[in-house]
Amino acid sequence: MSALDPQRTVRELKELRALTATAEGAKRVAWTETWEQARSWFVELTVDLPVEVERDEAGNIWTTLHGERPESIIIGGHLDSVPGGGWLDGSLNVLAGLESLRRLGAAGTPALTVRVVDWADEEGARFGRSLIGSSACSGNFDPDELRNMRDSDGTRLADALAAHDVDIDRARDAARQLETAVASLELHIEQGPVLERLGLPLAAVVGTTGIERHRVHFSGQSAHAGSTPMIDRRDPTAAAARFLLEIREIALRGGGVGTVGRVVTVPGIVTAVAGQCIVEIDQRHVEAEPLSAMHAEARNAAASIAKEERVDVEWEQILRLSPTHFDEELIALCDEAIHEVAGQSHRMPSGPGHDAIETARAGIPTVMMFVQSLRGLSHAKEEDTLEEHIELSVRALDRLVDKTMNWALAANDA
Amino acid sequence: MSALDPQRTVRELKELRALTATAEGAKRVAWTETWEQARSWFVELTVDLPVEVERDEAGNIWTTLHGERPESIIIGGHLDSVPGGGWLDGSLNVLAGLESLRRLGAAGTPALTVRVVDWADEEGARFGRSLIGSSACSGNFDPDELRNMRDSDGTRLADALAAHDVDIDRARDAARQLETAVASLELHIEQGPVLERLGLPLAAVVGTTGIERHRVHFSGQSAHAGSTPMIDRRDPTAAAARFLLEIREIALRGGGVGTVGRVVTVPGIVTAVAGQCIVEIDQRHVEAEPLSAMHAEARNAAASIAKEERVDVEWEQILRLSPTHFDEELIALCDEAIHEVAGQSHRMPSGPGHDAIETARAGIPTVMMFVQSLRGLSHAKEEDTLEEHIELSVRALDRLVDKTMNWALAANDA
Repeated sequence: MSALDPQRTVRELKELRALTATAEGAKRVAWTETWEQARSWFVELTVDLPVEVERDEAGNIWTTLHGERPESIIIGGHLDSVPGGGWLDGSLNVLAGLESLRRLGAAGTPALTVRVVDWADEEGARFGRSLIGSSACSGNFDPDELRNMRDSDGTRLADALAAHDVDIDRARDAARQLETAVASLELHIEQGPVLERLGLPLAAVVGTTGIERHRVHFSGQSAHAGSTPMIDRRDPTAAAARFLLEIREIALRGGGVGTVGRVVTVPGIVTAVAGQCIVEIDQRHVEAEPLSAMHAEARNAAASIAKEERVDVEWEQILRLSPTHFDEELIALCDEAIHEVAGQSHRMPSGPGHDAIETARAGIPTVMMFVQSLRGLSHAKEEDTLEEHIELSVRALDRLVDKTMNWALAANDA
Repeated sequence: MSALDPQRTVRELKELRALTATAEGAKRVAWTETWEQARSWFVELTVDLPVEVERDEAGNIWTTLHGERPESIIIGGHLDSVPGGGWLDGSLNVLAGLESLRRLGAAGTPALTVRVVDWADEEGARFGRSLIGSSACSGNFDPDELRNMRDSDGTRLADALAAHDVDIDRARDAARQLETAVASLELHIEQGPVLERLGLPLAAVVGTTGIERHRVHFSGQSAHAGSTPMIDRRDPTAAAARFLLEIREIALRGGGVGTVGRVVTVPGIVTAVAGQCIVEIDQRHVEAEPLSAMHAEARNAAASIAKEERVDVEWEQILRLSPTHFDEELIALCDEAIHEVAGQSHRMPSGPGHDAIETARAGIPTVMMFVQSLRGLSHAKEEDTLEEHIELSVRALDRLVDKTMNWALAANDA
């Protein structure tokens, strides 16, 4: 009989890293050979277990331990990574879930069905659209909107999926996977510095922040860097610089975060004032109203800076996402599980988006658990978590699975 | 006998535009087919003139009207353009020079030799290195430094030159072209708004500004845009934004110009604080000492901003050019010529670099003349100059050629 073995999870994570990472970090970008390699490796781990493995219409891989009843608890994760990513983001979730399946499977047939899902393309690293597989299940997936998105080589999203046996027009058929689901659980590294600063290993995640993501185009007048007196310039880059500093102030005042991660100057040559400067901003807040206020402030700031700098400004929406609130009862169970293994818990929102958002949007009671990240780093080869914390997280998730099963059975009986 | 016909120059400029521009502007980028087409068209214009046409080892085309004596006056220009450039930048110079050759050639053999040179690759649009042909003549040309520069397609500079019959290792042999030169004249559009604002058609150029051109790398910590609290960030883009606004203040205080025309964020994705932000700055001043002071201020600003933002900063020099002072006597002659045709003259420095810098650096007495640009625009399809001003500039340059010849003869006789 197989007991829960959290050290095995650490070993398997290292094995996966050895298989799919180079000195520059993880290479498991979705819809690539290395990603398929990681998934085949994972499926191989399940061959001796009493589970059924199925790849659905959206490319998600479901490992199902059938219970006495068809109602199912989903444990979500993703084996795909960003290019040059870390060893834990997404993979920890899947392998910790596998460990619970092993423990449950060895103990006989569980009362409810338990399923580990390796969601396809959580990161969106190649096409810029994240949560592909989970949104296909939840229905927040429009083939016509996604079909012609292109990667940096010009390959269309539809063609990349087809090369991995996913027909973009049938991807939403994967929604059937959620029909039996009564709860959705996801363990994830925090990817931020909060738990490390608090000296805590684990937290229950209360929801995910809302997002206002926009491309802001400042247009002035391209002019020769040598011949144009300073007072005659209409410099969109200067306007963008003032704007991005304002985005920071707005976030500090509003209690959220605000980021300008991308700046593009056009034509972008050293001998000319740019004609255009495009900045991409990302504002987040855990509550809808303050987020709205932050966004309105950003619009006002852009308008008044543009006026002062005599440039034009235009907004293009990239993504607007409402905050997601996870299930209150599952949050309480998650808190309990963490208390039991770590003595102390914490509740916090998630800034990053996760597949759990999609199961929550599909109406399935959902909760996430965070484990501490070292130095707050993620999406980087330096991403790391103490091994003892990884092991604690495997134990806490496993307890949460049991608690969730009891909770679902009680609800069903009531 | 052919009199000076400045309207012909306007007609020829339009003809060249029709031949080598599209709706997006001029396409005469050096070392391309369109450029060669422009040059063949120009050579065709000279067939009925008593001139000798020669293409030198650096790809410059010399049209020589031999005089009674071998000492020569050079009239410089360039038929190459930036992509999407205007109809006047460089071409006006060449065609105005041709008009003087016609007038002189029709009047018999001039006392001194007069040569129009179409310098190869003044713009440096394809490889980022300007003044290729003129610097090969002046000796400020290091084949080993240039050989492996690449264009955006990855083609090496040496190979692009070879495809146009220029052996990069022999380009400096073109220096022989300057052996007989006693003066170098260059007419050019201003490419800035100063003359238009003053309501003047023409100016004598006293020299070119010195340039401090650098790539400044700010390095912080790439971090997730959602999970990293504002106070924990080390955001190089915010540091760069503060720096670029400071560059503007420094230029305003110092009486020069300062430009950040290019900003690059790495990795440059909307969901992450960038790990690196690289800005390219270009500072110019007509005098060496204030330029030095502006540059020192920029260094100090970068260092103190980097410290406050907890990021690192590194400087990489792209170009450092001392101010060039043109020949005092030729400036006076240029002033005279302008007074004679326009009633009023002006003296001003040039912010943009020009081939005339190279002849000045080679020790040849040099001067430039500017004609007004409309709206200060250049390196853009909107580049324009009133036709009456173009015609005035052809007349003024022609007078300057005569004055220069008399001056050189007098100096020789003295």
